[in-house]
Amino acid sequence: MSGSGPSTSLVAMTANTREKTSTSGKTPVTLLGLGAMGTALAGTWLAAGHPLTVWNRTPARAAGLVAEGAKGAGSAAEAVAASTLVVVCLLDDASVGEALAEADLTGKDLVNLTTTTPDQARARADWARDRGARYLDGGIMAVPPMVGVPEAGGYVFYSGAAELFEQHRETLAVPVGTRYVGADAGHAALHDVALLSGMYGMFAGIHHAFALIRKEDIDPVEFAPLLADWLAAMAQGVHLAADQLRSGDYTKGVVSNLGMQVAGTPTFLATAEQQGVSTELLLPYFDLMARRLAEASGDEDLTGVVELLVRGE
Amino acid sequence: MSGSGPSTSLVAMTANTREKTSTSGKTPVTLLGLGAMGTALAGTWLAAGHPLTVWNRTPARAAGLVAEGAKGAGSAAEAVAASTLVVVCLLDDASVGEALAEADLTGKDLVNLTTTTPDQARARADWARDRGARYLDGGIMAVPPMVGVPEAGGYVFYSGAAELFEQHRETLAVPVGTRYVGADAGHAALHDVALLSGMYGMFAGIHHAFALIRKEDIDPVEFAPLLADWLAAMAQGVHLAADQLRSGDYTKGVVSNLGMQVAGTPTFLATAEQQGVSTELLLPYFDLMARRLAEASGDEDLTGVVELLVRGE
Repeated sequence: MSGSGPSTSLVAMTANTREKTSTSGKTPVTLLGLGAMGTALAGTWLAAGHPLTVWNRTPARAAGLVAEGAKGAGSAAEAVAASTLVVVCLLDDASVGEALAEADLTGKDLVNLTTTTPDQARARADWARDRGARYLDGGIMAVPPMVGVPEAGGYVFYSGAAELFEQHRETLAVPVGTRYVGADAGHAALHDVALLSGMYGMFAGIHHAFALIRKEDIDPVEFAPLLADWLAAMAQGVHLAADQLRSGDYTKGVVSNLGMQVAGTPTFLATAEQQGVSTELLLPYFDLMARRLAEASGDEDLTGVVELLVRGE
Repeated sequence: MSGSGPSTSLVAMTANTREKTSTSGKTPVTLLGLGAMGTALAGTWLAAGHPLTVWNRTPARAAGLVAEGAKGAGSAAEAVAASTLVVVCLLDDASVGEALAEADLTGKDLVNLTTTTPDQARARADWARDRGARYLDGGIMAVPPMVGVPEAGGYVFYSGAAELFEQHRETLAVPVGTRYVGADAGHAALHDVALLSGMYGMFAGIHHAFALIRKEDIDPVEFAPLLADWLAAMAQGVHLAADQLRSGDYTKGVVSNLGMQVAGTPTFLATAEQQGVSTELLLPYFDLMARRLAEASGDEDLTGVVELLVRGE
């Protein structure tokens, strides 16, 4: 119906796409960065039959993968030239800038799995677009032993170019699961940092709990399932907190209110003292609870403390 | 075979036991303290057919239970006299001493569910034994809406007189599940405080995570399952930590070591700064990690920080 232009373009695009796939039909992948995580990722693409080009600042780290069939590139620029899909897994944002300084990114699909802050990811997305690449940022919610082990439950948060994600979804899902969290290139990193920050809070609680029983005749291995099960059950309180944050009504569905919980804190502090345990990990949150109680209703849930943590609220 | 003495005693004991059970065959229970938790416990014993005597400092709170068949006692001493099994669920340890000051505890089985420190529980156990009672301390791992709802998973830690626990196990299991954690009367309270302290750490992490996404176009209700699932999965790290604490080898089974994790902390702090979120809940644990790294191997897991929390280690 329309002129020959679009059809010709479509044929050209199809041919171009064919060029980009290997005889195995699997999308070629270039991977920059062969730390523990990069090496684990690389192994899964190789095993799945993807033509793989790798580069690492220290070339020796590529030897094992090259022996298994990967192509070792002499420079990052050469590695980038080898595939449309370029995955980067380096030490930090500065390393990404350095590694890609000489590379031609025109027409590339750049997937950056390097751990950064959200603002660094956004700046890197602009930088990549300025160089003619599509950009997808990733935040890895896994440790290397979980890569290639679907039942381990690891995954990567992705954000940025939705069309890049859709096109390479299958390839990206080879090492671990994928979760796309929106067009803002900073949101993958933000989700990553937010979940890991939550985890560090939990670890602080776990280590305080173990410290409390340290001098008692209580086997930590018998104590562990009680603590793990309790935390897993209480983690479900996140859903109620989310409802309260969305509605702004912190008194909704409360089962143990702020007033009662603040009244209970002296028992936790006194127990730590009696057990010879520092209160340094408990005090900041208890202090925050008390500050919220001073300005809000004792009938609230604990969730209201979020407002005290955010500047300008 | 033996003389008539033992047989007579046995008959007398049997008769005595029969006196203590009701026509329904259910053990009579006296309950002191009708706050939200005491009232919830009382309701389940009544519903299960246990003869129930209740007392509360403010008598009006007993009216509903009396209408349902409980006996309202005029004084705590009178309530204690009504049953061998006496359950106490009051505001704090001082309230227990006051309420029981005039009661005759000879031959009583005192079960104290009042929230206290481990040392208060131990002192109360000695106090009760001096007055001729057997003593069991309890730490309630449930909120009132979970009482009488077995699938809610609530339970009570018990410690102290094992024979008291065994004898009344079935009755004590009516409101929620039971977990006996040893003869030391302080251990129920210690388990209670330790698990709840762990929970507050987790809540601190959760609220920091929600604060990080607060100013973004991210729906907390969509974010919640990601956070809840991640925390539930990471809570299983408690088992490895327990193994490490028992063996004293903190390098055992490490997947992400202390050195790497300390190196990553600036990203978490910078992200909080960029999102306008206070770092007050993150800093104490990050500081502890850095202090551990300064004195121990970077190949350790995070678990080694427990040694820094306990005085004299």
